[in-house]
Amino acid sequence: MSGSYDPTGFRPLTFHDAVPGFRDGRDTPRAYLERCLGVIEAKEPVVRAWVTLNVEGARAAADAATARYREGRPLSPIDGMPIGIKDLILTQDMPTEMGSPLYKGYNPGTDSAAIQALRQAGAVILGKTVTTELGMSHPGPTTNPFHPAHTPGGSSSGSAAVIGAGMVPAAIGTQVVGSIIRPAGFCANHAIKPTYGALNRGERQGFSQSHFGVHAGSQRDMWQVAWEISQRAGGDPGHPGLFGEPLPRPPAKPQRLVLMESEGWKLLDSATLGGFETLLGRLRDAGVEILTRRDSPLIEAFEQAIGRSLEICRDVCGFEQRWTLENLAAKHREGLSDSIYSRLVLAREMTLDDYRAVLLQRELARRAFAAIGGLADGVISLSSVGPAPRADNQAKDSGITHTTGLPAFNAPSSVLGAPAITVPLMAVGGLPVGVQVMGQPHADAPLTGLAAWLAQHVPPVVVA
Amino acid sequence: MSGSYDPTGFRPLTFHDAVPGFRDGRDTPRAYLERCLGVIEAKEPVVRAWVTLNVEGARAAADAATARYREGRPLSPIDGMPIGIKDLILTQDMPTEMGSPLYKGYNPGTDSAAIQALRQAGAVILGKTVTTELGMSHPGPTTNPFHPAHTPGGSSSGSAAVIGAGMVPAAIGTQVVGSIIRPAGFCANHAIKPTYGALNRGERQGFSQSHFGVHAGSQRDMWQVAWEISQRAGGDPGHPGLFGEPLPRPPAKPQRLVLMESEGWKLLDSATLGGFETLLGRLRDAGVEILTRRDSPLIEAFEQAIGRSLEICRDVCGFEQRWTLENLAAKHREGLSDSIYSRLVLAREMTLDDYRAVLLQRELARRAFAAIGGLADGVISLSSVGPAPRADNQAKDSGITHTTGLPAFNAPSSVLGAPAITVPLMAVGGLPVGVQVMGQPHADAPLTGLAAWLAQHVPPVVVA
Repeated sequence: MSGSYDPTGFRPLTFHDAVPGFRDGRDTPRAYLERCLGVIEAKEPVVRAWVTLNVEGARAAADAATARYREGRPLSPIDGMPIGIKDLILTQDMPTEMGSPLYKGYNPGTDSAAIQALRQAGAVILGKTVTTELGMSHPGPTTNPFHPAHTPGGSSSGSAAVIGAGMVPAAIGTQVVGSIIRPAGFCANHAIKPTYGALNRGERQGFSQSHFGVHAGSQRDMWQVAWEISQRAGGDPGHPGLFGEPLPRPPAKPQRLVLMESEGWKLLDSATLGGFETLLGRLRDAGVEILTRRDSPLIEAFEQAIGRSLEICRDVCGFEQRWTLENLAAKHREGLSDSIYSRLVLAREMTLDDYRAVLLQRELARRAFAAIGGLADGVISLSSVGPAPRADNQAKDSGITHTTGLPAFNAPSSVLGAPAITVPLMAVGGLPVGVQVMGQPHADAPLTGLAAWLAQHVPPVVVA
Repeated sequence: MSGSYDPTGFRPLTFHDAVPGFRDGRDTPRAYLERCLGVIEAKEPVVRAWVTLNVEGARAAADAATARYREGRPLSPIDGMPIGIKDLILTQDMPTEMGSPLYKGYNPGTDSAAIQALRQAGAVILGKTVTTELGMSHPGPTTNPFHPAHTPGGSSSGSAAVIGAGMVPAAIGTQVVGSIIRPAGFCANHAIKPTYGALNRGERQGFSQSHFGVHAGSQRDMWQVAWEISQRAGGDPGHPGLFGEPLPRPPAKPQRLVLMESEGWKLLDSATLGGFETLLGRLRDAGVEILTRRDSPLIEAFEQAIGRSLEICRDVCGFEQRWTLENLAAKHREGLSDSIYSRLVLAREMTLDDYRAVLLQRELARRAFAAIGGLADGVISLSSVGPAPRADNQAKDSGITHTTGLPAFNAPSSVLGAPAITVPLMAVGGLPVGVQVMGQPHADAPLTGLAAWLAQHVPPVVVA
């Protein structure tokens, strides 16, 4: 039973190439939105990616954008872009239900900083996309757009699926462990999890390694959304925000890449491993040197430093969300899944010194990553340990069930606070598998050049 | 027209010395609470320090504490302690109105991390104390407990006043610029603004230099409250939390102190300056060497680096709260004071690069402070530029009106993220003036030893 993904035939929805039509009157943001709504009407009954759609508000916003283009005064390059917002992020005109019955109808009536920025840039906030429960592991109803029996990944399940389904050109996701890059890879997105702190998380500052990021059908839309947010809302408090330029960098061929094994390597299925080795072979054929832990003691030290990233994530996040979960558990234990409750149970065992010790492990991993910065132009791995598993799987690690797929390849970039981009360069069994590239903190913009080169110069690998 | 403060006669309320009575049955937490309620009944009509009192909930909590002492099983050294909570901090059983009509009745029904920790330690959450509007400059109704025509300071106006009035033994405050130490000094509190990140700010992570801290009638209660919070709720996400031991350090005489002039020095009134010079003379007589900017090029460099701390605070906070204020202003401009709206107007002029530049200034100040760490055992200055001004004053700096007093001596420790403690060691015109000591980040515990030595070995200075 194979999926329907064909990397050479797949045409995701893009926005930037529609803008010239808006400018000369051949097309309008309103008409663009209506085309999106048509796709949603056709596919949403199976994909189930949206929690809330604000069609009326989106049409009004698209009409306003249409008028601005007519007057020759668009607010930004993303003026009129329909966009989906992960349902963990506050929007004043829609509830924010966080994938939990405990937040049914919750709406404090304010926009998160990034949403405020998107509106200022003219983007059309179309709706809220499904998240797993509180952004953790317990899945929502969304299905993989390339096979409905498979997970879309998580926690940014809906934001990944709406791109894979061609419903909108971009969506906002969040990542604490692997919640942007993994689902984006499962759904053939281009997506960026920027440097830690680069995009203002608004009210969601409760985790020391959570990030806002962008899912999109093209690298250009992906970067422009991130950039336009950063220019209006800045980064997190105390952080300098996203560095770079308004457009992504042109393709830049790397001379050398570090292959990151991490905890993901031993979990790769043989089909995916074979496909990835084919892809690495194509890179070598193109003259790119691939360095591994066997090539340098610095890389070996780096691999050792990130070798327990999943545990670091579990303990950092567990301790940091303990009080929030205690608040919920005190009143509504029945409203929490067993999956998330098990995280609270684990976290209750931690002392403040345990937390300090895991912060130190994280800091040591960051130093080890900095130490390999000069060796290569970036780090390459996969965005997941295989294609999206079936939605009824119950994979576990570190005592936590991961129905939406294992984050073994994603945990390192979250631990390191390093920028990561997924490029849809593989298909395994008719399902997408993303290739993940990672750069040093604040090197988000150069990383777009590397990602562009991969996307434009490396033919996708298809494994039956 | 002079105030009623007499530093030798003033007896603030303390808790730690009541605990032996709870243990042997001579006294109970319930009886202690009733005594507090008696003081509140007598003084609150003039002091107006409380927004909400939860008398019924507090009595139930005090009865539970009474039962625990009877059984010989108190939860912590602060079990049964009645405590006031600044009305910026979420409490599940009381609204959090933030000194703004826009938050009238606001209650998401959850406890902030520190409040959860206090309840776990057995503390009696008695009520919410007045804050200025959103913790900024526009004052609430609270008066100075030593003279009703004078400000109690702000933004932790109520938390400072309840200590000065002897209503409770401790209260929680917050500081972004000078909101704990200055009002605490105006109201003869012992108070600590710990190292940045040392006490978990829960939902209030929106500023990169805000802090939770403790106002108290004694140094021991002050430290024990901070410590018991830190052991249960930890620090902010990604921070190691408060370091030290359960009890404050014994008095430790410093060999050398750096006198910090900062922007406060030139604003000192002559009476306060004279009093402070008398106090410095007593320190020298006791054998403490006082170093100034004229004694070391490192101290001179430090003074220059912190010489624009007020502007740094204005710009850091302005940029960081811009999106929050925009949310409010978009719907309810009339619900914002002109004082806070003027902050938004200033912040709108800032670009992301302006913000990055001010973060760099802040970072350079931190490096300069680290560079004087080896010169002395701490830094001494005042907690304010004089005693509490009249409540009808309209002092300005950097374009912002400061009715609750100028934060010129406080901004440096907020900018530096350094721990600061105020000790009630002066009276000017019958009103309290605090002496502020500051240590290197994470040296909170040694700083309690320095503060204890000052409190126990330096006679207060009284200026008519």
